[in-house]
Amino acid sequence: MCEANAYLVKEGKEELILEDLSILRPEKDELYLQNIFGEQKRIKARIKEMNLIDHRILLEEG
Amino acid sequence: MCEANAYLVKEGKEELILEDLSILRPEKDELYLQNIFGEQKRIKARIKEMNLIDHRILLEEG
Repeated sequence: MCEANAYLVKEGKEELILEDLSILRPEKDELYLQNIFGEQKRIKARIKEMNLIDHRILLEEG
Repeated sequence: MCEANAYLVKEGKEELILEDLSILRPEKDELYLQNIFGEQKRIKARIKEMNLIDHRILLEEG
């Protein structure tokens, strides 16, 4: 499984937003996220760092 | 292998920027990319779309 989990970093804490992410797409001032189960989320955030080895995508409020 | 390849989309064509990407981090007006071999690149671009199932990260000039 090559998907990653998306976390929102807020005041130094990481909040899990979506597991097993397959698609991430910036749209205007938000991010569109979709996982392998077809779950979709939009969140007002930007990418802070992606680490595909650790399967982690860190987001921060934009 | 869970890494993805990064492509720059330019005039409808995709140019391979870095293979086997492990880390991607936005820095000011550029993106920092690192692959599993320790190769590093900085490119003035933004993320257009990531598809982790297809192992593809599409970038566009920012």
